[in-house]
Amino acid sequence: MKYSKIPVAQSIVALCVAKNIKHVVISPGSRNAPLTIGFTNHPEINAYSIVDERCAAFFALGIAQQIKQPVAVVCTSGSALLNYYPAIAEAYYSDIPLVVISADRPIERIDIGDGQTIRQKNVFENHILYSANLYSELVLENEAQDKKLLQKQFESRRHNEREINLALNSAIENNGPVHINVPFYEPLYSLEKNKITDPVQILPDLSRRVYSKLELQPYLDLWNKAKRKMIIVGVMAPNSVEQKYLDLLAEDPTVIVLTETTSNVDHEEFFTRIDTLIGPIEKSEDVEKQFAELQPDILLTFGGMIVSKKIKSFLRDFQPEQHWHIDPKKAYNTFFCLNKHFETSVNSFFQKFFPETISVKSDYAEHWKRINEHRKQRHDIYVNKIPYSDFKAMQSIVPSIPKQYNVQLGNSSTVRYAQLFNWDVSQSIFCNRGTSGIDGSVSTAVGAALVKKDPTLLICGDLSFIYDSNALWNNYIPSNFRIIVINNSGGGIFRILPGNKDTENFDTYFETIHDLNAKSLCEMYSFEYSRAEDSDQVSTELKKFFNSSEKPKLLEIMTPRSLNDEVLLEYFNFIKS
Amino acid sequence: MKYSKIPVAQSIVALCVAKNIKHVVISPGSRNAPLTIGFTNHPEINAYSIVDERCAAFFALGIAQQIKQPVAVVCTSGSALLNYYPAIAEAYYSDIPLVVISADRPIERIDIGDGQTIRQKNVFENHILYSANLYSELVLENEAQDKKLLQKQFESRRHNEREINLALNSAIENNGPVHINVPFYEPLYSLEKNKITDPVQILPDLSRRVYSKLELQPYLDLWNKAKRKMIIVGVMAPNSVEQKYLDLLAEDPTVIVLTETTSNVDHEEFFTRIDTLIGPIEKSEDVEKQFAELQPDILLTFGGMIVSKKIKSFLRDFQPEQHWHIDPKKAYNTFFCLNKHFETSVNSFFQKFFPETISVKSDYAEHWKRINEHRKQRHDIYVNKIPYSDFKAMQSIVPSIPKQYNVQLGNSSTVRYAQLFNWDVSQSIFCNRGTSGIDGSVSTAVGAALVKKDPTLLICGDLSFIYDSNALWNNYIPSNFRIIVINNSGGGIFRILPGNKDTENFDTYFETIHDLNAKSLCEMYSFEYSRAEDSDQVSTELKKFFNSSEKPKLLEIMTPRSLNDEVLLEYFNFIKS
Repeated sequence: MKYSKIPVAQSIVALCVAKNIKHVVISPGSRNAPLTIGFTNHPEINAYSIVDERCAAFFALGIAQQIKQPVAVVCTSGSALLNYYPAIAEAYYSDIPLVVISADRPIERIDIGDGQTIRQKNVFENHILYSANLYSELVLENEAQDKKLLQKQFESRRHNEREINLALNSAIENNGPVHINVPFYEPLYSLEKNKITDPVQILPDLSRRVYSKLELQPYLDLWNKAKRKMIIVGVMAPNSVEQKYLDLLAEDPTVIVLTETTSNVDHEEFFTRIDTLIGPIEKSEDVEKQFAELQPDILLTFGGMIVSKKIKSFLRDFQPEQHWHIDPKKAYNTFFCLNKHFETSVNSFFQKFFPETISVKSDYAEHWKRINEHRKQRHDIYVNKIPYSDFKAMQSIVPSIPKQYNVQLGNSSTVRYAQLFNWDVSQSIFCNRGTSGIDGSVSTAVGAALVKKDPTLLICGDLSFIYDSNALWNNYIPSNFRIIVINNSGGGIFRILPGNKDTENFDTYFETIHDLNAKSLCEMYSFEYSRAEDSDQVSTELKKFFNSSEKPKLLEIMTPRSLNDEVLLEYFNFIKS
Repeated sequence: MKYSKIPVAQSIVALCVAKNIKHVVISPGSRNAPLTIGFTNHPEINAYSIVDERCAAFFALGIAQQIKQPVAVVCTSGSALLNYYPAIAEAYYSDIPLVVISADRPIERIDIGDGQTIRQKNVFENHILYSANLYSELVLENEAQDKKLLQKQFESRRHNEREINLALNSAIENNGPVHINVPFYEPLYSLEKNKITDPVQILPDLSRRVYSKLELQPYLDLWNKAKRKMIIVGVMAPNSVEQKYLDLLAEDPTVIVLTETTSNVDHEEFFTRIDTLIGPIEKSEDVEKQFAELQPDILLTFGGMIVSKKIKSFLRDFQPEQHWHIDPKKAYNTFFCLNKHFETSVNSFFQKFFPETISVKSDYAEHWKRINEHRKQRHDIYVNKIPYSDFKAMQSIVPSIPKQYNVQLGNSSTVRYAQLFNWDVSQSIFCNRGTSGIDGSVSTAVGAALVKKDPTLLICGDLSFIYDSNALWNNYIPSNFRIIVINNSGGGIFRILPGNKDTENFDTYFETIHDLNAKSLCEMYSFEYSRAEDSDQVSTELKKFFNSSEKPKLLEIMTPRSLNDEVLLEYFNFIKS
């Protein structure tokens, strides 16, 4: 095997492998050569080369999102590293273990006018679980004979090993981004046949808190009295919650369970379209009365970010008496009334909690399920009568997606439209809702596609597609990868917000209208390209789109931009009655 | 006129205008609507809409690089802001006044699970001159009657005004990036016909230090004794130094002046090709002797970053007794022997310094000028015999560029090759050498092109072109803008470094070879595209390339990647003899 001659580079690679890191995404550079040499020559590492660091980090994020294990990105010194930041912030808020390893110049070369040299130490301070700032290890030409020097080297090495351990453990224990910054002296390319480090191993602490009956009793007392309980499930990986617990919730007459596509949980009694429930109430004359009826005594939440703005707005105004959140790591005070953070996994909580609950009579669930049923009928009528638009396109797309597909959604129109439809239970749905940016959805989808046996489909808008078009500059895109771009010639979502539409200023600075399409990019990056410009073409194209192919495919659905906002806003009026 | 109803938005716009900001680059968003409304409706502001924030910030940097006045970028909350970071770091190290204005959510909405919400406060801490963290100003529906509330609002507003002033002043006084973060409550789109703020004005302090004869005397004493003085000019804007001072330096027999293309100074006695001077010495048998002869007593530097690695390496080994740097803001200890920082402008320094200098006899300049003359002859022989390669392509390109052109160079092969040629004195040469990244050269060039009467040419490599290809997603590209992409199918610079070339690992992770070209991107973004694949085609295409056209043009020069390193490395051997 080949190793870098630089001990700290060996230690980083050895510790990454020891902690089960399998995927390393490398961007080209010279300062990071010791790491590139180490990772690419290790048989247990799958290495990838991606030039644009912004894409590289989102690509790694996509892999980590799927495998739920840390994935590393490696870059050279200088501004290269800063291009990772959007993905780091996404990883931070989406709880995805992303290990950022940056090569740096030795400390005495910072701020003296050397090229590609910035202040990398703690540079992601605001959005990082751990920053390991390593010492550089000078490889001496002749074996050092001086005892003091040897002792100093030994101590530096042990310091570095501990810091690497702590950073990696932090990513593993707390699912988030960590940064290891490692300064290297030249020469950078020297090879070594043998392992020369045997780094200290510090094991991660994977214990989870288990609640005793005594601890749970006060909450059980509240639960067993309450007649109106609302469960909201945020972003969750598929199979995070055992179905038996979901079934118990679904069948409880005091409980309604509100889910989003990104919750990846399923039960026919769940309220899968939150905005379809809340939106019409907002538009009703007796809005106060209806919301008062919906207002829960207890709100129990788990999972990550919640997409629906409407549910947030409702619960901030009509607060439950109790809001509890279950998550091993964090609990956001999303509705400004959080009472309790159960610091454990959902399964572990329910395992202890459910046996102690008693059945309570209530017509809460039944009442709202009836309304929900009515809304579903109105929804079906509405979507069949609307003109060709983003909404209509989504109505064609969703049922056309084959079973077992992994679906990645762009921000923010796409993920919002997606909430208004029912998705097949066999499909897994993902979206970068940590920061809800448009900046890395394509790269994330490519990374996710790479490590999934079942095919991946990305649905996104034109702006997010072009924004992240360098995602296609990637040699690892599987041929079964699919992209649907809904091209409404700009940022359609801004039409739905309360700006002054259809003025020149609005078109230019908010909607940012354009007449671009994805065809040239598909040519450049060898995607099979097709386009649809009306409902019939959409149907025709979708019929072929998921067939197997030699190259990955992109379907661009061109929609008339000026209709979309009206169709969406009228929807909530229509389903109300 | 139309104003935002939110007072702090009005204050930001008013203060930017008062401080002579003319250009504002806006990326679409909703949270920044109050700023977008304010800037786009102001008659003294040229507003631009650019979707990809990474490109938007480099585009703004390009404008500011040319006009030497602050240029603002405005974005919405969340990860959008983080995409500015590469350009911010470049501005920080290149001393370019870039004003980053980010809309934020109110403080109580941070880290509670709202969308597009991150920790924006001080997020660029490592690379920013000033971070103004503003308070949000709640616009009350009814005029507040409570005195305490009015007092609180008054104090918040005055705090904000002061912070905005200090941030903008910092950009003006110290030429660098500043960050103004401004949280907004909804509603965001409300308009107001009248100006409702009249912000406090704090003037920037533009005074420069003037050195007295007394202060200069110790340095004059050294100067007037020294027989070997070396001047190195780093990155400088054109016309930064009065020609009469440059002439005095050129004629002094004790002085050699080493310049780079990016120094933008000119005299026929200057050593314009540093590596052509140093490179052959490195390869000589009597390297120590020759370097000892070149070693200066006094090294005087001014300007920003120095491109040549060879001169840094030489002067770190053969240190001058005195190293002085002239710059109003900063002095890097680039050669680890800085003795004195003259904190003033170059003109101001020379105005006081030169009258007190006396002529000293020396053959230092003459000796090295003779060697330099010989090198020029060898250079001419070499470039006429080399095969078609990057080097050869540059030899064709440089003399073909019309007079008065503004030339932007990509990192890092391009800017390094550029140092080996003589450029026309009427041309101005720029390169993002602050962080020396490949991440924003195209966007910077587009921004620079926009504000220059004379046309702009960008020369860059394939990796930097594709990396920043979203730069072409821009409605403001003048038709006289030109790009030459030297496409050697990867990161050719890595072939010149001491890695293990032509292994599979090297090709993939260092050179990152590919078979892409720029044609599809030119189709997508309406550039006239042409291509050359040998010397004759290069000549033919270059003859037409600078003719005026309806659309901007891109010429792609395909070179054989595997020859380039040999041609360059052999160069220094050849010109030595």
